[in-house]
Amino acid sequence: MRLLVALGGNAIKQAHEKGSTQEQFMNCKKTAVLLAQVVAKMGPEDRLIITHGNGPQVGNLAVQQDLAKAVIPPQDMDVLGAMTQGQIGYMLQQTLDNQLRKLGLNKQVVAVVNRVLVSKDDPEFQGENASKPVGNFLTEAEVKEEKAKHPEYIFKKVKPTGDRCWRRVVPSPDPIANVEAEAIRKMVDAGIIVIASGGGGIPVILNDNGNYRGVDAVIDKDLAGEKLAEVVNADTFLILTDVEKVKLNFGKPNEQEISQMTVEEAKRYLGEGHFLAGSMGPKVKACIRFLEWGGKRAIISSLDKVTEALEGKTGTHIVRG
Amino acid sequence: MRLLVALGGNAIKQAHEKGSTQEQFMNCKKTAVLLAQVVAKMGPEDRLIITHGNGPQVGNLAVQQDLAKAVIPPQDMDVLGAMTQGQIGYMLQQTLDNQLRKLGLNKQVVAVVNRVLVSKDDPEFQGENASKPVGNFLTEAEVKEEKAKHPEYIFKKVKPTGDRCWRRVVPSPDPIANVEAEAIRKMVDAGIIVIASGGGGIPVILNDNGNYRGVDAVIDKDLAGEKLAEVVNADTFLILTDVEKVKLNFGKPNEQEISQMTVEEAKRYLGEGHFLAGSMGPKVKACIRFLEWGGKRAIISSLDKVTEALEGKTGTHIVRG
Repeated sequence: MRLLVALGGNAIKQAHEKGSTQEQFMNCKKTAVLLAQVVAKMGPEDRLIITHGNGPQVGNLAVQQDLAKAVIPPQDMDVLGAMTQGQIGYMLQQTLDNQLRKLGLNKQVVAVVNRVLVSKDDPEFQGENASKPVGNFLTEAEVKEEKAKHPEYIFKKVKPTGDRCWRRVVPSPDPIANVEAEAIRKMVDAGIIVIASGGGGIPVILNDNGNYRGVDAVIDKDLAGEKLAEVVNADTFLILTDVEKVKLNFGKPNEQEISQMTVEEAKRYLGEGHFLAGSMGPKVKACIRFLEWGGKRAIISSLDKVTEALEGKTGTHIVRG
Repeated sequence: MRLLVALGGNAIKQAHEKGSTQEQFMNCKKTAVLLAQVVAKMGPEDRLIITHGNGPQVGNLAVQQDLAKAVIPPQDMDVLGAMTQGQIGYMLQQTLDNQLRKLGLNKQVVAVVNRVLVSKDDPEFQGENASKPVGNFLTEAEVKEEKAKHPEYIFKKVKPTGDRCWRRVVPSPDPIANVEAEAIRKMVDAGIIVIASGGGGIPVILNDNGNYRGVDAVIDKDLAGEKLAEVVNADTFLILTDVEKVKLNFGKPNEQEISQMTVEEAKRYLGEGHFLAGSMGPKVKACIRFLEWGGKRAIISSLDKVTEALEGKTGTHIVRG
């Protein structure tokens, strides 16, 4: 088995928490205990590759940079993404390493700084198409103030009512390729548990002169994770989130859990709008892509059910049909 | 040749700069142009490994975290170090990758999150021994204020006169081992240009229960770089700083540049106090350790002279004697 696990935000920071170092290490430790159990069952030829989100961390970091901007120049969004790869990579690497050694497993865990290529012609970069909300909720007055300082920023009303219903939105372009693919493949082949593509990867474009350059954007971490799964030749793609199973008619009286669906069914449900755009939608889309690329199993389940989901006892399993 | 290059702060940020993303990318690009020329001359069996400092970056980040602490909990010092490994790793990785591809060289450059083990019994952790100044210069009143909030912090008078002559000091323990040694060795063997041990590595101790845990400390980046050189079996250790050669009687009328010195001479000069504790001292010490471990060549020179220094045309060369 070559297993790629995509960890959701709750693996690192709970929604109600402020995000102190201690809190985040506690969450990472819980995550690491579960992942170490998965590794313990693996054979010598099996591989684990990990990716993770960074929403709360990069959000906090952006606020900190902004509050200090009179003194220190805030770093660009691509650099902030890189910083959270270091931060979260360290916490996961340290806690998983500790758990593996506790089980007597001699495995190396290494987080890498990892870029993901997007197209500068992606529709998300055009006009007002940008769709990914970042940063704080703002009032209309604050939006005007921000817009005066950064005319290139796009703001959208993300809540129908209330005082603070505006947020900045940035492009969420489709990932094209994992830039460090060759190196990551070599690392995985050498038996290293690699943590990569954190926060959807650092978004870069290829300039006309052939140089990579970072851009202000946020790539969906599950779609980027799917590209990583291809790179490492994964057969199993496991997306861990806060629900045990995907639901049809989510939030309605006829809501229904899905235990298994074929790619064709998943596509139909996606088209029918069963899955939220910023939430379950890209997860299901990433699973579809993985199976159409040639992957064997795609599973969506909750972090605490990781072992049961891999054993087929729970979770939503998407199969080729 | 297996070459380990330790980059000083000026490779990433000039002293007079504020440290914007654009400024830092410009500096990294200049550094990358020079390093790519070194790689271009390498044979298929040769290897380049890179380490770097993080003083200005982690200093800025700590100030940002502090200024926002009413809203967001500041991350611990080990996590800040990890964040700068992501930040600087990304900028070096991207700019060097761009320069290598420009020269038609198909090489992977990858920065890794990297911990360095220190001893919890290191003298630097005892009493008021901590010696590494971090953060802003403070007034005596500010020191009292900070001390009230963080009774465990140590402050020292680092300038004899003036209003703001106090700074916080943290332990600067001696590096014992590079925690990701095995993985880094595999990566280097596979032909990857690895950026590691950034900022002296993330300092961790081994707890009584056998777990690694981050500590508030700053490891000297050249001493940590020397450990990395051992890990990757480097034969050449090149420390790039802002002077072309090390000097005897630094700052005195009889000041004299050193082109070559043996390990024995270097030890004697070090003992005689020719090299500053927070500056040239640890660099010379790192070179001595490298040669005593079994390294062939240790060189201290300036970044812009990297090629000439490797060709033996300039720099201070420390040899086994």
